[in-house]
Amino acid sequence: MHTFVRNLITEWRRLELPVENATVVIGVSGGADSVSLLLAMRELVQTQKLDLRLVAAHFNHGLRAFESNADERFVKMLTAELKIESASEHSKSLATGNLEQNARRARYQFLSRVADGIGAFAILTGHTINDQAETFLMNLIRGSGRDGLCGMRAVRPLEEEKRGGGEKDTTPFPLFSSSPTLLVRPLLSWAKRQDTEQFCLDNGIEFCYDTMNDDMAFRRVQIRKILLPVLEDMNPKIVETLANTATLMQNLETPGNRLALTDVLILGDLKILSKSELNDAIRSWLRDRRGNTRRLQLKHVEAVERLIFSEKSGRIVELPGGKIVKSDGKIRYEQNKVEN
Amino acid sequence: MHTFVRNLITEWRRLELPVENATVVIGVSGGADSVSLLLAMRELVQTQKLDLRLVAAHFNHGLRAFESNADERFVKMLTAELKIESASEHSKSLATGNLEQNARRARYQFLSRVADGIGAFAILTGHTINDQAETFLMNLIRGSGRDGLCGMRAVRPLEEEKRGGGEKDTTPFPLFSSSPTLLVRPLLSWAKRQDTEQFCLDNGIEFCYDTMNDDMAFRRVQIRKILLPVLEDMNPKIVETLANTATLMQNLETPGNRLALTDVLILGDLKILSKSELNDAIRSWLRDRRGNTRRLQLKHVEAVERLIFSEKSGRIVELPGGKIVKSDGKIRYEQNKVEN
Repeated sequence: MHTFVRNLITEWRRLELPVENATVVIGVSGGADSVSLLLAMRELVQTQKLDLRLVAAHFNHGLRAFESNADERFVKMLTAELKIESASEHSKSLATGNLEQNARRARYQFLSRVADGIGAFAILTGHTINDQAETFLMNLIRGSGRDGLCGMRAVRPLEEEKRGGGEKDTTPFPLFSSSPTLLVRPLLSWAKRQDTEQFCLDNGIEFCYDTMNDDMAFRRVQIRKILLPVLEDMNPKIVETLANTATLMQNLETPGNRLALTDVLILGDLKILSKSELNDAIRSWLRDRRGNTRRLQLKHVEAVERLIFSEKSGRIVELPGGKIVKSDGKIRYEQNKVEN
Repeated sequence: MHTFVRNLITEWRRLELPVENATVVIGVSGGADSVSLLLAMRELVQTQKLDLRLVAAHFNHGLRAFESNADERFVKMLTAELKIESASEHSKSLATGNLEQNARRARYQFLSRVADGIGAFAILTGHTINDQAETFLMNLIRGSGRDGLCGMRAVRPLEEEKRGGGEKDTTPFPLFSSSPTLLVRPLLSWAKRQDTEQFCLDNGIEFCYDTMNDDMAFRRVQIRKILLPVLEDMNPKIVETLANTATLMQNLETPGNRLALTDVLILGDLKILSKSELNDAIRSWLRDRRGNTRRLQLKHVEAVERLIFSEKSGRIVELPGGKIVKSDGKIRYEQNKVEN
């Protein structure tokens, strides 16, 4: 098995993603990043490491007249050759305003529609460790604070894009809802851009080159072509270093993940948290107590919040598979004894 | 009053530093940073905004034969002209190893001896917001993690340098001891390097230029001369942005400063902290309860730690001005009723 494929399955397991009975949409632009992801996912299915339905989805932004159509044709031929189901769509018109942002939004809305249509649990994208380093630098230069320094997450719910939201990419773990579509970036924490190119070459598969990658009007291109080479002179492993820093920021101690370690939560501790900290704390605490977030919905978390702040009413909140009991200034989780 | 001087007194008050009956040592290399600090501190004393004894201290590293001696003569003439007390010393020999680090250590050991000799509460240095941005970038490129991203602190104890320690600069607030000398950087959070030069010019005072500032063998010089101009093209306010990011990292929620908000500490909460988190938590909690850290020593914090972990022995730790009482799985601080 190629190292690239082995790294991918290792990451897949680390992220605790489903290995069977599930469908994923893979966003394929035609570039080396997404093509290598498609090839490696296909190999994992063929070698029965994963038993998943794969659907490749290509969005034609139509931003680069001939090139965009050529990319679309390339992805269609590739998926046909690989015998992978595929979906594609042409952009209608990109509204006025920020071109990059509108293109991104339209793309994610399309991917999201495809995922909803076939009941996929996740959309996979081919973001690499280089993209992470570039995102970190963009946010640092812009001065976006702690959230920005967290960079992109390997797994997060797609909710924001569905609502047409902006680029914020900081939700620490899936929100509770019936079944949010996940945005998964299985290459983010380990694959360098050149690894993706090499893997395509090793498979004898061509890939498209997006000429927008050379358009210095884009901040990301300036960072890649001008800033990163300067930084690389000072630290040849700068891409890994910056990506590690983003991960470190994601894992920084917060009130929520600290409290999640304890078996009971002290009401006094919870009441001094901000609304969002409290929400985080309850969610990660419940996740750790239950072992997973299955069937847990936002309404459950809100019920726990009410329980915490109510002076007299109610001492118990029923949850799927268990309940929260309040007593003596604390709350604890009790798993149901019998459940089938 | 010159804006520079007004900014300095504003920062002095923000940092809650003594305004009378105290002595400070000002480290003066002869460069614009330290000369402007000396001039502005002198003006604050002359205009009676501060009633402090100022002592300028110059350390001649002897690294740049003629130039080093010229700098020393310049500082001697300047302090004589300004009628400011001064002290200076020639470096003996810098041990083998890292030249910058040894020079830095020898300098701080000298400044520390001067401070101890005259009972100064603090050593002031002329580090600017530019130095902060450069330090942040150096640490980011090196991959030094959260601590490094905090950059330099405007106020911290000098303990590490006294012990001959390294460059670590992350102690969040003064350690408890009888009276640790503080390292104070009153320009760090607001003055740009060119503000210091302009202030010297506006006062008709010359300053030295350290040719080591142009020596590209130093990482810091590479950052200043190559990296920062690239970043400035992308964000003209990059120096402020990076310095703000360092401040933001310093202020990030930690278990210690969060617990410090509550009136009682739950033992269960404390026992899950790491050793250093526990130490921080106790110190900041005690500081908030007592209003200050006067007469509080490391042995007191350690006694509180023992109290937290002891199963049966002891329920009270006596502190100067109050005591810690353990009961019912919690500890609380009780101020002594009468104290003169």
